[in-house]
Amino acid sequence: MCQSDSMILSDRSRDINGAINELDSVAQSIEERGTKIIKMNIGDPARYFPTPNYVIDAYIDALRSRKTYYSSPMGLYELREQVAKKYRNLVTKDDVFITQGISEALMILNSAMINPHDEALILSPYFPPYLPFLKSSGGNPVIFEQDENNGWSVDTDMLRRYIHDMHLKYMLFATPSNPTGTILSRNVMSELAEIANDNDILLISDEIYDELTYGSARFTSISSVASEMPYVVLNGASKTLDSTGFRIGYIVVHGDGEDMDALRAKVYDYCSLRLSANTPAQYAVCEGMRNGREHKRALAPMVRAIEKRVKIMASAINAIDAMSVIMPSGAFYLLPKIDFDGLDIKDDFDFARRLLLEKGIQTVAGSGFGAPGHIRMVVLQEPDVVEDAAARLAEFCDEHSI
Amino acid sequence: MCQSDSMILSDRSRDINGAINELDSVAQSIEERGTKIIKMNIGDPARYFPTPNYVIDAYIDALRSRKTYYSSPMGLYELREQVAKKYRNLVTKDDVFITQGISEALMILNSAMINPHDEALILSPYFPPYLPFLKSSGGNPVIFEQDENNGWSVDTDMLRRYIHDMHLKYMLFATPSNPTGTILSRNVMSELAEIANDNDILLISDEIYDELTYGSARFTSISSVASEMPYVVLNGASKTLDSTGFRIGYIVVHGDGEDMDALRAKVYDYCSLRLSANTPAQYAVCEGMRNGREHKRALAPMVRAIEKRVKIMASAINAIDAMSVIMPSGAFYLLPKIDFDGLDIKDDFDFARRLLLEKGIQTVAGSGFGAPGHIRMVVLQEPDVVEDAAARLAEFCDEHSI
Repeated sequence: MCQSDSMILSDRSRDINGAINELDSVAQSIEERGTKIIKMNIGDPARYFPTPNYVIDAYIDALRSRKTYYSSPMGLYELREQVAKKYRNLVTKDDVFITQGISEALMILNSAMINPHDEALILSPYFPPYLPFLKSSGGNPVIFEQDENNGWSVDTDMLRRYIHDMHLKYMLFATPSNPTGTILSRNVMSELAEIANDNDILLISDEIYDELTYGSARFTSISSVASEMPYVVLNGASKTLDSTGFRIGYIVVHGDGEDMDALRAKVYDYCSLRLSANTPAQYAVCEGMRNGREHKRALAPMVRAIEKRVKIMASAINAIDAMSVIMPSGAFYLLPKIDFDGLDIKDDFDFARRLLLEKGIQTVAGSGFGAPGHIRMVVLQEPDVVEDAAARLAEFCDEHSI
Repeated sequence: MCQSDSMILSDRSRDINGAINELDSVAQSIEERGTKIIKMNIGDPARYFPTPNYVIDAYIDALRSRKTYYSSPMGLYELREQVAKKYRNLVTKDDVFITQGISEALMILNSAMINPHDEALILSPYFPPYLPFLKSSGGNPVIFEQDENNGWSVDTDMLRRYIHDMHLKYMLFATPSNPTGTILSRNVMSELAEIANDNDILLISDEIYDELTYGSARFTSISSVASEMPYVVLNGASKTLDSTGFRIGYIVVHGDGEDMDALRAKVYDYCSLRLSANTPAQYAVCEGMRNGREHKRALAPMVRAIEKRVKIMASAINAIDAMSVIMPSGAFYLLPKIDFDGLDIKDDFDFARRLLLEKGIQTVAGSGFGAPGHIRMVVLQEPDVVEDAAARLAEFCDEHSI
């Protein structure tokens, strides 16, 4: 919806907006005229792959046995134990806080840590909510660009020089990344940990797509390279258990010493203020993580299907003159670069808007992800729909080439 | 958990704590020694009354048909329509925002409206999270005490004089109240609306206990006395549908003009940032509200049972020399006053702590609710447990009388 300088709103709220939904009202008016939109704007696998039976069964069991009360503020004991196990017991259940998705986790962490004018480092391109949650606490983002020409890798030497004199509260990144789908190499993860250690910056690693990986790059969790240091992992059930609508995420706070104890205590206090996350959904997620055999059986075909769909679209994009994209190794996003020199379109907002109006494909302008000149596409549809979208995209670029 | 002046924490987070859980660690250590605690600290009816079958069935249906994806940020269309209907279509579905409980609603509203040093009026005694969410946005609470000697009513003449020169962003109260269980009369509600109108203050009425009423006092929604004015209603499914663990609340934003349009747009933006509330739970709540016949059938016996239990405890308390309590008209709380002159106990914290240690009854000190010298009790247990607790409380006061 539109911005306003209304008297009723706080200054901080100016920076709050939902980039991903920016074209929703346009899409709605097109749909009301009877045209079907291919929605490639929201990363919601549960729209395209049914949530696994064994997870649904556990959810139904919890409802039948009336586990419909508040859980403890930190979340179910059993679920926190499962999370600790996932991190090979490098952390304990007391380091784990179940949240209402990663967005609540970001809200809590920024509220707990950020004073006005504090700075925090965010690797770009980034998941859009990273910025508003930081700014809403009065913090200033320091953006460091990942290198597209090098497969969206991080030039850690340049990063080290860049932040040399800064006092940064935390360093936040996602691997695999939304919106690029790239995985930070073990080497880069180790370097980031070292930089954080040398500069006394808290590492926050968003690993929500950790199990949705394919291709040659191997995923590395921050927990496996920073075991002697403080770090925070953000993760949850939305993507790996294909259960976005459950709203179950978690924060893992690792590290000894007074600061990390204080952070855990404060995260607990914030959790306590909102009582609990959805209780029966926590039981479902607990079983989802506990039953490794069923989890693998459900996950593997979904990952293969996603890989296939993403590859179709990536190949099609790289065959278009005015576009190019790095093939991702995880998640289900593409962030193609647009060569505006050959098009009668002025920028990424214009591109996304016209693509929707003219071809019925809803994407998001890259600017909201820190990547102007790009668009972000979610590729989850059936292969024939992806092929159709790819053909329309090619047509669109053709029609606008100059 | 304990406070700390750690460097890692923000200044604002100092004011964040969960009053209701303050004795949890003490209770846990008692339970680990094998003693059963009567927990009268958390207002969770779903622990004592099973969530109605028809609501659970709707939840299961939603799961079976894999409604496990994100809903729209504002919440399910159908659910928002049910909410609008509940308010007799004085509002529309576009005024309704589904939230993850009232705590998220408070977080969003304070973030959207409060600048540092802004003031907002809170009627006291209050639901503890009202303060930290306001303070976390930099706001200062202006507390106005309800009059215990007059059944916790509001002296509106005094209130008018009290706030005469203030610039208040909003006025927040709950009816029926947590922690007093009292209902603000239609007359008081009208006066509050008039005061808000005269002083340009946004009314925020927390009506989460609106259907849990008994006794002679009749509940009045702000929507029925402020139909020509801007107001916000906070409500949800937790209490009336006996489904605390679903985490489904809602915000109703009523009113014309630029300010209210801007507020709605900004609440939408905040909702968009965290994608959605739990989707299958929203379907359950939608059916819970839609099926009026089943709702009444489930609610009526629960309300009768609560009334009975609350009356047992209130009568027992009023028979204790050192204690007295106003009989509530709704919800399931009691806020007895303690006469410390006759006891060897120094304050409400001391009282709550010793009552737990010596008699195994967990209550909460009234100070966290703006009512020092009181304790807050949740009365939901089976009548024999309530009687047992009442007997132990009498014994406790007897043993500590001087």
